[in-house]
Amino acid sequence: MVTLAEARYGKAQTRIVRVCRDGDRHEFKDLNVSVTLAGDLADTYLTGDNAKVLPTDSQKNTVYAKAAEHGVDQIEDFALLLARHFVDSQQPIHRARVDIEEYRWERVSLAGEPAPHSFARAGRETRLASATYGRGGARVVSGLTGLVLLNTTGSEFRGYPRDRYTTLPEAGDRILATAVDARWRHAAADADTDWADSYAEASRHLVEAFAGTYSRSLQQTLYAMGERVLRHRPEIAEVRLSLPNKHHLPVDLTPFGLSSDEVFVATDRPYGLVEGTVCRGGAEPADGSGPIDGAW
Amino acid sequence: MVTLAEARYGKAQTRIVRVCRDGDRHEFKDLNVSVTLAGDLADTYLTGDNAKVLPTDSQKNTVYAKAAEHGVDQIEDFALLLARHFVDSQQPIHRARVDIEEYRWERVSLAGEPAPHSFARAGRETRLASATYGRGGARVVSGLTGLVLLNTTGSEFRGYPRDRYTTLPEAGDRILATAVDARWRHAAADADTDWADSYAEASRHLVEAFAGTYSRSLQQTLYAMGERVLRHRPEIAEVRLSLPNKHHLPVDLTPFGLSSDEVFVATDRPYGLVEGTVCRGGAEPADGSGPIDGAW
Amino acid sequence: MVTLAEARYGKAQTRIVRVCRDGDRHEFKDLNVSVTLAGDLADTYLTGDNAKVLPTDSQKNTVYAKAAEHGVDQIEDFALLLARHFVDSQQPIHRARVDIEEYRWERVSLAGEPAPHSFARAGRETRLASATYGRGGARVVSGLTGLVLLNTTGSEFRGYPRDRYTTLPEAGDRILATAVDARWRHAAADADTDWADSYAEASRHLVEAFAGTYSRSLQQTLYAMGERVLRHRPEIAEVRLSLPNKHHLPVDLTPFGLSSDEVFVATDRPYGLVEGTVCRGGAEPADGSGPIDGAW
Amino acid sequence: MVTLAEARYGKAQTRIVRVCRDGDRHEFKDLNVSVTLAGDLADTYLTGDNAKVLPTDSQKNTVYAKAAEHGVDQIEDFALLLARHFVDSQQPIHRARVDIEEYRWERVSLAGEPAPHSFARAGRETRLASATYGRGGARVVSGLTGLVLLNTTGSEFRGYPRDRYTTLPEAGDRILATAVDARWRHAAADADTDWADSYAEASRHLVEAFAGTYSRSLQQTLYAMGERVLRHRPEIAEVRLSLPNKHHLPVDLTPFGLSSDEVFVATDRPYGLVEGTVCRGGAEPADGSGPIDGAW
Repeated sequence: MVTLAEARYGKAQTRIVRVCRDGDRHEFKDLNVSVTLAGDLADTYLTGDNAKVLPTDSQKNTVYAKAAEHGVDQIEDFALLLARHFVDSQQPIHRARVDIEEYRWERVSLAGEPAPHSFARAGRETRLASATYGRGGARVVSGLTGLVLLNTTGSEFRGYPRDRYTTLPEAGDRILATAVDARWRHAAADADTDWADSYAEASRHLVEAFAGTYSRSLQQTLYAMGERVLRHRPEIAEVRLSLPNKHHLPVDLTPFGLSSDEVFVATDRPYGLVEGTVCRGGAEPADGSGPIDGAW
Repeated sequence: MVTLAEARYGKAQTRIVRVCRDGDRHEFKDLNVSVTLAGDLADTYLTGDNAKVLPTDSQKNTVYAKAAEHGVDQIEDFALLLARHFVDSQQPIHRARVDIEEYRWERVSLAGEPAPHSFARAGRETRLASATYGRGGARVVSGLTGLVLLNTTGSEFRGYPRDRYTTLPEAGDRILATAVDARWRHAAADADTDWADSYAEASRHLVEAFAGTYSRSLQQTLYAMGERVLRHRPEIAEVRLSLPNKHHLPVDLTPFGLSSDEVFVATDRPYGLVEGTVCRGGAEPADGSGPIDGAW
Repeated sequence: MVTLAEARYGKAQTRIVRVCRDGDRHEFKDLNVSVTLAGDLADTYLTGDNAKVLPTDSQKNTVYAKAAEHGVDQIEDFALLLARHFVDSQQPIHRARVDIEEYRWERVSLAGEPAPHSFARAGRETRLASATYGRGGARVVSGLTGLVLLNTTGSEFRGYPRDRYTTLPEAGDRILATAVDARWRHAAADADTDWADSYAEASRHLVEAFAGTYSRSLQQTLYAMGERVLRHRPEIAEVRLSLPNKHHLPVDLTPFGLSSDEVFVATDRPYGLVEGTVCRGGAEPADGSGPIDGAW
Repeated sequence: MVTLAEARYGKAQTRIVRVCRDGDRHEFKDLNVSVTLAGDLADTYLTGDNAKVLPTDSQKNTVYAKAAEHGVDQIEDFALLLARHFVDSQQPIHRARVDIEEYRWERVSLAGEPAPHSFARAGRETRLASATYGRGGARVVSGLTGLVLLNTTGSEFRGYPRDRYTTLPEAGDRILATAVDARWRHAAADADTDWADSYAEASRHLVEAFAGTYSRSLQQTLYAMGERVLRHRPEIAEVRLSLPNKHHLPVDLTPFGLSSDEVFVATDRPYGLVEGTVCRGGAEPADGSGPIDGAW
């Protein structure tokens, strides 16, 4: 006998720009919003009866309308608002997850002054928020992706085991570079949390731990990054990191009579990939907030 | 107190081409191999002691060497061979996962005959295999990604609930298009399985279910696809599908006095995303093989 | 004094699917159409006076409407029809260029028969057509991109000069792989040309020349490809090819006591890039048809 | 008779990181270098005789070695140095073009101080330089790509002609957004030019012209951008701009009883594309420096 073990659906990648035209000095938010809903959905899978299937087009409209009605300040709040809306207004929907990417922009200068309504996309990391809301409560995960960091020194890799396939020479002083992909789970989905401050500080701690750790392995750096966020930010219960090792290999210039310690080739693949989750001991998930991995 | 809750690492995206030059008629396999290892790894995270960290460079070399030694026939077998190698040869490694993408190539014709050693990349779907090996046993998941399918008719979407944000008109005859992303778990990781036949047939059933189902929702089509694979292939225990709804919207040509039922705009985003897992009732994971989602 | 030396504008990437629902057996075309217009446009650049600027939104609508009115058979004809429309209907527009990409789809099988209205995207090469129309007449360029070809033998690279930075060993038997990007200019923009046949044959000759040439350099293969098309297809006056050398480097397996002639690493970059234009001697551009490079 | 009308080859996308470890405070340059050579190359195309074909592998090595020997300060100088090297050292090479992309990085802060050797990739625009060197002399083109700019107001589009396919309503106050792709040709390839200052100022003028121009069309904005660079920077002879109109369409929220002037959908395609070249009157190309378009 065949059964439907899991089912969910939604609208992915609604690209919305919410402008705030109050006064002479404009502000705006540039977001990519994805909605996923689950619940009493078996009918449409098994028979094509859509009586419980709120169209994904309506979900998209909801994103636009809620942004217009409530504005968008912190993406964690907007994700929560949307997730709650779908579960509270659609009886068959038992759980909603809303993922938001926020693209950074900077106000440009005009004749030495901040321009009133002109911006350049910053293009550094993308800020992320994810809210899951269901019968068990709410969970909020913040994060970032695409933060590319590099140390020109202060990194080694030695003392590893050698098997018959090992040819790697030990490195006493190497470039360490990665593209940080991080998620951190908040202990509570309180509306009281100062999401902006929490994000700014968590990001800063990730960067400072990367820059300030003498690294014997990228694993050690990863742990230092997660540990530092948890040590300084009591509102965060868990940090999950995925760090590609963006290898920068020294070019062998000895055939040309040149020294090889200042020229590197930046390779694309293959690449090492180090992952880890650091959490607060005893940080048992309360009120619906499971670990990040057991998502969704 | 802060703890390391989860840790893994490996070498991602080793791009290898294995040529078989036996005789006049060459064959080759074009693969992208990613290795992930877990086990007794806390030392390197906590202190930078790398005594248990087999370098990812050695993992890459292992992929090359094993391909040379054993050849590459079916990617499920090659993934299993690699996963077993890492766990069996590295005492601290308790679990290994090997993911392989196989790119399709077709032999070209030359003067009406199959060319002996010339090929064109087929570019349709990418075949996937993933083997996980650990103390609990082995699990093999096959799959495909990037299979773009389209029905020009035989699809409707009606009878859905309408909330205050619903403006979508019902569709009695629409284009249905998706890019199939599918994974299927084998009931056993037997070396006896005819992986090539299993893949060819599972793929064929996915395509035929998509083409042959009158669709009242993409959800219904998804279930039909998974159900059909399970019905015909006893070696498969579970099918997981992720189907973006690649919307093709009719263009309103009435302002130009033209009919609108044959011209469509293919949109990129936002898009609906329908996901589901179909499994054989009572298909309890045996010998280490958990469900696909609880991966890793 | 500052002047406007060159100006053009248009609508890029209108993604249109034109279905033909005649009878039980449907057909469709999947296109990406880009329009570029030039002419008496200085006013809008210099003063913002838009009296001569047909909106790009209207250009998009025109693509849809013309596809509805006339259908789409061969993309060369559709590109010509559109280019002529803009020049003939907009007095300030002196020249129009229309570029079309056509994505390949294959009809799928259903229970051993061709399915009536179900298709899979082929994903191999993309067919291209470009029509330029202006006072000097019309020019039609056909082409393809994304055709990835590979020979497992029949390629060497030797006899090259060595400077102080040369370390490359000579290769007596190497893999040769490329992603063909080709454009060919038709001697005339006749509506009489059988574009479908011309495309099929030109493509076939490119593939056969790649497969059938013993290659001493990718340059030699390039010339053989262009020369063969011109030799067999009198309607084609010029072929322009851009061939990346997708290096497949033998992996050194000697540290593991293994032979190294059957395992290769497929690299992404850097890559060699060989370009060339082959033309029919005396193929002087007539009636507005300049060489491909002097495009625009 | 078939002839080789054009031929060139080289090594594309050599990714090099040049670190400067002088003292405690490190610096580095992150570049992507592409080399293209032309000259007396017909032999290899026609017969496979490689006696005049400097391997692309040697070109790659040259990039690394020259970076080690001379360091890398301004990319215009490094491109010139490389282009000259190939022409001056290889008799059959008559012309060389070197294109360099430079990725921006920012020094990170550590405990409130600039970190000595830690950086984050800035990810905003990519700086470009291209040097062409041949018998006619040298030409240097600088530029940037990927600079995404947006004005939340100060843009309209009205007064355009309406044909039978025009449905666009006039816009009195719209968002204007683009991703600037710019190239500017220097009047001379002098080693005296302060490339860093020239780049910083040209970039600043592009941004300020975008932000400071009340825009009646994107064409008008384009001209204003080019004109302003030429007006302020005598060392620049010509500016070529390609500006996609990244449409931000107001969402119609009237069905939900909401106002529609603060919520926009950011679309990907189709998009308007406006291009233009602005040059200094009488800026006749001297000593080998042709216009950018007649490239290479």
